[in-house]
Amino acid sequence: MESKQKAVVLLSGGLDSATALAIAQQQGYQCYALSFRYGQRHTSELQAAERVANSMNIEQHRVFDLDLSLFDTSALTNCDIAVPTESVEGIPATYVPARNTIFLSVALGWAEVLQAANIFIGVNAVDYSGYPDCRPEFVQAFQTLANVATKAGVEGIPVQIHTPLIQLSKAEIIQQGTKLGVDYALTVSCYQADRDGAACGQCDSCRLRKQGFIEAGVADPTRYR
Amino acid sequence: MESKQKAVVLLSGGLDSATALAIAQQQGYQCYALSFRYGQRHTSELQAAERVANSMNIEQHRVFDLDLSLFDTSALTNCDIAVPTESVEGIPATYVPARNTIFLSVALGWAEVLQAANIFIGVNAVDYSGYPDCRPEFVQAFQTLANVATKAGVEGIPVQIHTPLIQLSKAEIIQQGTKLGVDYALTVSCYQADRDGAACGQCDSCRLRKQGFIEAGVADPTRYR
Repeated sequence: MESKQKAVVLLSGGLDSATALAIAQQQGYQCYALSFRYGQRHTSELQAAERVANSMNIEQHRVFDLDLSLFDTSALTNCDIAVPTESVEGIPATYVPARNTIFLSVALGWAEVLQAANIFIGVNAVDYSGYPDCRPEFVQAFQTLANVATKAGVEGIPVQIHTPLIQLSKAEIIQQGTKLGVDYALTVSCYQADRDGAACGQCDSCRLRKQGFIEAGVADPTRYR
Repeated sequence: MESKQKAVVLLSGGLDSATALAIAQQQGYQCYALSFRYGQRHTSELQAAERVANSMNIEQHRVFDLDLSLFDTSALTNCDIAVPTESVEGIPATYVPARNTIFLSVALGWAEVLQAANIFIGVNAVDYSGYPDCRPEFVQAFQTLANVATKAGVEGIPVQIHTPLIQLSKAEIIQQGTKLGVDYALTVSCYQADRDGAACGQCDSCRLRKQGFIEAGVADPTRYR
């Protein structure tokens, strides 16, 4: 068997998940990256995930198809709903119902198939957009669920959910990733990137990212349109 | 708004979920049935789900596509693995990794979109096949997760997971469903039903079902081939 331990890493193509992948690799895990095609407004996010996966020497990258057209209330999956460009109170229109629960569930199943005892997710509870499924209490509840949900869990090899970014600011994430050699030019964070991955510079995600590079004192390689 | 409360009901096309749907209806919920096309060996299960949905006066029935070809270790999704016809110790080959976790996650998202505060799942911890994700501790852990995973949960309208069959024997399920008018001839439980839904009579699921009708003292309407 492999001397390295296996990990499934959720990879969106954004800045956070690219950093989480780099951290998993640096910690010595053999990485299986998992992305989702779930009816995002733009495919440049998935192209970014592929570029990131190719730029790191990982074991495998798979894209899982999820038809979330049932969930047509989010600005990320319904083009008729505008992406907000101002900070809002509460949970913004870009929230996709149960998204991280579904992503982690699929990761849990794939981990069991791979006999991987680790899942990495780049959620972040500091500079984030107020999503309920990015908070430590969510991750803790999913960890408890994972321990009882699978054959592997029941047979004593529970999956460990790793959230290396959860307590970091965006600037700290960028600093850590930069040290690990993450090429952020490959990543796309914008909620409404164009076909080539150029960012709008105005949505919530763009503003957090831009501010993060400034605070980190790292040159921002993002292509704005 | 509706006077009836909404519920998402997981509907596989088998005996248990048809009974769970009948119970949800009898309790006065406005029912939204959710089935999955996940690469089952046979499509007669989904046809059965459709027949059951049509036979009850429900609000909506949706089929969600899930490409579980990542999970090729189960006899239910990989035709190269034999369906067991003998009882086995431990968790059988028909186990699909994280299946109920994934199904409930999607149901959770749909419930939030519908503003439904209820999910029904026909899991059963008595006459079942030893799956980890049919046990009360699994359901309890998912309930805890649901409370923190969604915008609805955070805003004080958490989803309630209902498992009306969890402590019933197969015979008791059949008796209860029969009282509620469930037409079990419409349902398919067999793991290897043929194209027309005729059952093998030998797999785990067939044996539990057959024995259930005998113990319930109800005529078995199953078509065996």
